[in-house]
Amino acid sequence: MRIQPDDVAASIQRDIGAEVFAVYGADRDTFYGHVQAVLKTRPTIVVDDGAGLTTTIHNDHAELLTDVIGGTEVTSTGVLRIKNMADDGALRYPVFPTNDAATKHLFDNRYGTGQNTIDGILRATNMLLAGSTFVVVGYGWCGRGVAMRARGMGANVIVVEVDPVRALEAVLDGLTVMPMSRAAEHGDIFVTVTGNRDVVTIEHMRKMKDGAVVANSGHFDIEIGVEDLRKEAEQVTELRPNCVEYRLPVGNRILLLAEGRLVGQSAAEAHPAEVMDMTFATQALALEHLVANAASLPAGVHGIPKDIENRVAKAKLDAYGVEIEELSDQQKRYLTDWRVGT
Amino acid sequence: MRIQPDDVAASIQRDIGAEVFAVYGADRDTFYGHVQAVLKTRPTIVVDDGAGLTTTIHNDHAELLTDVIGGTEVTSTGVLRIKNMADDGALRYPVFPTNDAATKHLFDNRYGTGQNTIDGILRATNMLLAGSTFVVVGYGWCGRGVAMRARGMGANVIVVEVDPVRALEAVLDGLTVMPMSRAAEHGDIFVTVTGNRDVVTIEHMRKMKDGAVVANSGHFDIEIGVEDLRKEAEQVTELRPNCVEYRLPVGNRILLLAEGRLVGQSAAEAHPAEVMDMTFATQALALEHLVANAASLPAGVHGIPKDIENRVAKAKLDAYGVEIEELSDQQKRYLTDWRVGT
Amino acid sequence: MRIQPDDVAASIQRDIGAEVFAVYGADRDTFYGHVQAVLKTRPTIVVDDGAGLTTTIHNDHAELLTDVIGGTEVTSTGVLRIKNMADDGALRYPVFPTNDAATKHLFDNRYGTGQNTIDGILRATNMLLAGSTFVVVGYGWCGRGVAMRARGMGANVIVVEVDPVRALEAVLDGLTVMPMSRAAEHGDIFVTVTGNRDVVTIEHMRKMKDGAVVANSGHFDIEIGVEDLRKEAEQVTELRPNCVEYRLPVGNRILLLAEGRLVGQSAAEAHPAEVMDMTFATQALALEHLVANAASLPAGVHGIPKDIENRVAKAKLDAYGVEIEELSDQQKRYLTDWRVGT
Amino acid sequence: MRIQPDDVAASIQRDIGAEVFAVYGADRDTFYGHVQAVLKTRPTIVVDDGAGLTTTIHNDHAELLTDVIGGTEVTSTGVLRIKNMADDGALRYPVFPTNDAATKHLFDNRYGTGQNTIDGILRATNMLLAGSTFVVVGYGWCGRGVAMRARGMGANVIVVEVDPVRALEAVLDGLTVMPMSRAAEHGDIFVTVTGNRDVVTIEHMRKMKDGAVVANSGHFDIEIGVEDLRKEAEQVTELRPNCVEYRLPVGNRILLLAEGRLVGQSAAEAHPAEVMDMTFATQALALEHLVANAASLPAGVHGIPKDIENRVAKAKLDAYGVEIEELSDQQKRYLTDWRVGT
Repeated sequence: MRIQPDDVAASIQRDIGAEVFAVYGADRDTFYGHVQAVLKTRPTIVVDDGAGLTTTIHNDHAELLTDVIGGTEVTSTGVLRIKNMADDGALRYPVFPTNDAATKHLFDNRYGTGQNTIDGILRATNMLLAGSTFVVVGYGWCGRGVAMRARGMGANVIVVEVDPVRALEAVLDGLTVMPMSRAAEHGDIFVTVTGNRDVVTIEHMRKMKDGAVVANSGHFDIEIGVEDLRKEAEQVTELRPNCVEYRLPVGNRILLLAEGRLVGQSAAEAHPAEVMDMTFATQALALEHLVANAASLPAGVHGIPKDIENRVAKAKLDAYGVEIEELSDQQKRYLTDWRVGT
Repeated sequence: MRIQPDDVAASIQRDIGAEVFAVYGADRDTFYGHVQAVLKTRPTIVVDDGAGLTTTIHNDHAELLTDVIGGTEVTSTGVLRIKNMADDGALRYPVFPTNDAATKHLFDNRYGTGQNTIDGILRATNMLLAGSTFVVVGYGWCGRGVAMRARGMGANVIVVEVDPVRALEAVLDGLTVMPMSRAAEHGDIFVTVTGNRDVVTIEHMRKMKDGAVVANSGHFDIEIGVEDLRKEAEQVTELRPNCVEYRLPVGNRILLLAEGRLVGQSAAEAHPAEVMDMTFATQALALEHLVANAASLPAGVHGIPKDIENRVAKAKLDAYGVEIEELSDQQKRYLTDWRVGT
Repeated sequence: MRIQPDDVAASIQRDIGAEVFAVYGADRDTFYGHVQAVLKTRPTIVVDDGAGLTTTIHNDHAELLTDVIGGTEVTSTGVLRIKNMADDGALRYPVFPTNDAATKHLFDNRYGTGQNTIDGILRATNMLLAGSTFVVVGYGWCGRGVAMRARGMGANVIVVEVDPVRALEAVLDGLTVMPMSRAAEHGDIFVTVTGNRDVVTIEHMRKMKDGAVVANSGHFDIEIGVEDLRKEAEQVTELRPNCVEYRLPVGNRILLLAEGRLVGQSAAEAHPAEVMDMTFATQALALEHLVANAASLPAGVHGIPKDIENRVAKAKLDAYGVEIEELSDQQKRYLTDWRVGT
Repeated sequence: MRIQPDDVAASIQRDIGAEVFAVYGADRDTFYGHVQAVLKTRPTIVVDDGAGLTTTIHNDHAELLTDVIGGTEVTSTGVLRIKNMADDGALRYPVFPTNDAATKHLFDNRYGTGQNTIDGILRATNMLLAGSTFVVVGYGWCGRGVAMRARGMGANVIVVEVDPVRALEAVLDGLTVMPMSRAAEHGDIFVTVTGNRDVVTIEHMRKMKDGAVVANSGHFDIEIGVEDLRKEAEQVTELRPNCVEYRLPVGNRILLLAEGRLVGQSAAEAHPAEVMDMTFATQALALEHLVANAASLPAGVHGIPKDIENRVAKAKLDAYGVEIEELSDQQKRYLTDWRVGT
């Protein structure tokens, strides 16, 4: 019954006729080792998760580009990379950014990461979240999922954010907003969800309360200054699975979860099947669309067609047994015909 | 101290050197009467609120088009109209859709409409919201603002929505989703926030509980079948200001608030100054941008420049005394340089 | 349709055969003037609201005691007074503390005061609550009602409390807890709900942000240091009805709502009928019980019989159309017969 | 670092000089086997958890009564039993109902059970809670803890309750209330928290959706009709640890978690240390009080002294670094001296 997301992805892709190879790797080095291995298969379709395949192909294996029809990219951070490539005129095949689909980021990032981050922290620590000061670093879709769930479990939530519009949303959502250097002193639990690097640094960790818990639920294990923490720690003790205590020379102890890798994947079981289904369905339909239209699609980033999103959302509503309202013809006309006035 | 949004808008616009004429009108007919009057001034900049000016100019006063440099449009529904015009190739001047700015729709629509709808209902009825079944028709930014606040006041919220992705978000937000024909039987309070017409019809109202409250917080007073209600009612009693009871032949009484006009504007005091400031600031800066770039802007819908949004959001954060995190150079590079991998 | 709680109370009491006199008074002095007036009627049943009648009878009009069968007391603060009297052996007739009934304090204090406090603040200020720092002074049933609703409207809530157990509940409810002297510097809005005096003093108000809003939703207008504020203010301006700005010599302006009287009663419309019905029903049935058992009830504080609470709660559930579960005989036996083990 | 509640309890008790024996047992039969074994030690102090020791002593081992000084009882259900015994005049030694202490039931039952129930369900199923219909059977302190957290995780919560006052609170908390026979058809997840037996029966389970999850977080494994489920199932499959699927002849599959034992203890790790500390501290101080006052305490149920609760709550606030407000002498006088009026 335990659904293995990767198996599901593979089986969906097999259904559309592809030979499938997968890249696994819990940390950055292992991951890139496997990327190199899988590229030896000379892929024609690149189903990317973090842009590791696409950047490696473009950086180091231009000889593979002739075989590649195109691909998809499923994470926020990966889509950012692909768009940067496109902006630089470097992207050499069409990519559908699955993450940009509402049926992906509004659900997987928010409800999926929201839940599995809480789940990972509970399994790794069995701490009481109610009454804790819970710092969420990054208020994108993942970050607001985590913030929403942390508050739902009774935590007092602080948000750290670099984007002024998102920071302002956090304020108006009733949360406390401050820079990381100040949040470092207040938090009991810290979760990074930025897709950036060096978000929680050793300087921050030196200021934290004794026993502060630090976890990552964003992109790679470089969001937290794990290497510096390891170097500086005077004593390292594994307290529980996925929970290692680092005693710093300044005297405080930092509890790092899952070595800074994604806590919801490492200490819990990643996204529940009920969100992965939407993400994979969106991705599979985008691939089908890619293959069907390969001849006419230029290199670059292409939006997921809205009818794919609607098809996935409708199928999911059916699964929930939820019926929605329908527009009458008159209402459709009212929404589209500007000549009738408003 | 009571800030008059229109005065603020006018004064901001005066500051940038414009002669200002305004259109007021609580219902559709009055409004369009005033539109005709103000168009006599031969406007050069059209600051629209619902697309009434722009559609009227294009439909009935093409002679004015030569004078118009361009304009802005501030509501969701108005932006939809303008985009329909652009899609039809009919739009003849550049328009900045203020509503599309994050600094407008994420704040004004959500937090502003959310609060003033609750406020309007309380002033018009003094009902206890806790324990009530509160039906929100439309789960756009306004609708989710209303749903969030209704739940925050203790109501049990039902959402009616036509878009499958939005409906699914409502489900995953823990709300109950159903079509209007079924919601009609369950609700104690109904609020329309769709920008469409005939959303709550006389057929729905006949099915409602005795004493059901019906209000609009969307676009015009045509979201609710007010005319049919008036025609069919056997007895009409004004219970309180902005709260009129209509007794239907089937025996139930419907309490219509503010005659179906925007309940937060009619029964309460519209948006608080703390959200209007952001909307007006965004609009004023968009107008400044329009005037500065008039020569080079083609007819059509143009996005609000991101730096305008950031400037407004930063000013607002300053007003709250909130300091945010800043990206280091290394972090900026990590976010933009795809060559370093991910 | 606007229900006058006092009229309802009077009519209920008339239904049980009593001649009814009522005491009104928005501030403490007026109130006590009316108390003296009503005592001239030589009451036989004392339906008290804040213990003003009972304390005045015992303090100043012992000659009335022979006529009094007993009474009820409806507020938290009044019940505290009556219990202090009983503890001192001073209470000379039986009193049923309506406020102690679950059907009163769990509903009226929490959901009623919670909503009407928000309502009063909105009508008096039209401020945006989302994003505001909202200080609730007192975390009893009224205070947690106010805190719950302030959070539900998007505020960031700080609680000030003297009782360690209640303070700890506030912490575990995810709220921020601190003493008033520190909260004074952080709040945008302050609401007192303590039943005590001098809870927000002029010393606190001198420290507040410019434009801070101060309101009372607890007991009398002595929770806030209103007199000191008036004395010290250099300039006093009525900004809106129920919203007066006091400019202090230190430079900041304090916006006092409703002159420190109950903001939900003065600036809004007191409790909605949907909670007053429960309170009055509980009170009326307690009076019926008092009269029926007058001969055998000693002086002192008597609990409201549990079957009165159940009767009121069941009637209310019926009004909501809500059906609840029933215990089987076997389940009742399991709950009461300890001999079967557990 | 993983704190074993039983070890903590034992060590606290050892600190106050007692020889300690403990009773363990995951299901009812094992538990009572161990009760018999531990009673052979002829206990002098009975630290009970569910009233199993006290009822067994009184039912079957009256010869032990002469040795027993008194005891404590820590669960809601156990306290109910002890009070039933006292009401029947059967209780033969003094018992302090730890559960009645605010420092126990307001924290342990609500925040502890609330969190560990969610944790147990996630570990046993990895289901997405957002969007699920989550039925909480029982709205006592445990039940409202579970309901609060389920809603906090995005579920749509239905409450089943037999007490009209509690049912009405659930309604005003914005939740849906209905009898179990109807809830059975709507729920995706069912959690019993009643302390009663046969709360979810085989008749209910036959009506449930295919794939419905059933768990207990109340008292013993008799809240759910587990035996009937086992008898009637045509096929039984262990899907995951603590998650067994029973296929019923009517065609639907029921996923029973932890065989109906406490899901938060069996599938997760019971209460976090941050709530057990309060419960054990309250219990230890009650025992100290019992021993110190043994000579003068009659048989019966005795309230935990308020100063014990305050001491525990203050120590806990200190641990959180939270400072609270203090009453001035004048304020204390105002609260206690009824002669000054109100």
